[in-house]
Amino acid sequence: MAAMPVAVTIAASEDDLAKVRFDEAGLVPAIIQEEATGAVLMMAWMNRATLAKTLSTGRVVFWSRSRQEEWIKGETSGDRQWVREAYYDCDGDVLLFVVEQEGRGACHTGAHTCFTRFGPDAPAQ
Amino acid sequence: MAAMPVAVTIAASEDDLAKVRFDEAGLVPAIIQEEATGAVLMMAWMNRATLAKTLSTGRVVFWSRSRQEEWIKGETSGDRQWVREAYYDCDGDVLLFVVEQEGRGACHTGAHTCFTRFGPDAPAQ
Repeated sequence: MAAMPVAVTIAASEDDLAKVRFDEAGLVPAIIQEEATGAVLMMAWMNRATLAKTLSTGRVVFWSRSRQEEWIKGETSGDRQWVREAYYDCDGDVLLFVVEQEGRGACHTGAHTCFTRFGPDAPAQ
Repeated sequence: MAAMPVAVTIAASEDDLAKVRFDEAGLVPAIIQEEATGAVLMMAWMNRATLAKTLSTGRVVFWSRSRQEEWIKGETSGDRQWVREAYYDCDGDVLLFVVEQEGRGACHTGAHTCFTRFGPDAPAQ
């Protein structure tokens, strides 16, 4: 069995955090990219509290819009995401996390990424 | 001067397109990733019409929420995005486009990507 990944916390400054803009529901989209492959794995949403928890614990924590509750990614499945780098965009209304993906992958279907290709010649990922 | 990139249109099936779910404003987030580097360049929004135009023209076309109008990426700046691959996610509510980025880069600031790193040791991108 592989060793458990190490948690890396991100010491974001108050100035950095103040640049993040949450929408009218208090949420900001968070793109998750895999460090090892560069693959975009998924996108979900964070609020102020789950962003702070993500940075301070080094584990990706979303806000589930459907369940209206905190969602510690992989907490039940074991498919955890360990933060390696964190970014905000020029408008402050999109986040990007580069992660180490543990377990099978990011998708609840068991697939490595959540994305399926459009088009007639689309290969499976 | 480099040759102008070639437009690649995506023949998405009606079944594929029917999987895309637009929010209450009629929009879906679209992540843009650079083919050559794997870098996540930006995220913006599409509606049904600009998604169809993106797929049929091979150029990334967003819907500007602030201006409430179609936004053909790079039309004025020359920093065009040429679609190479298109994806939708498992919930159908996020899109991902792998593109060839023309010009200086994706960001209106002139930067190559729209993302700035959090943290005290954050290198410039």
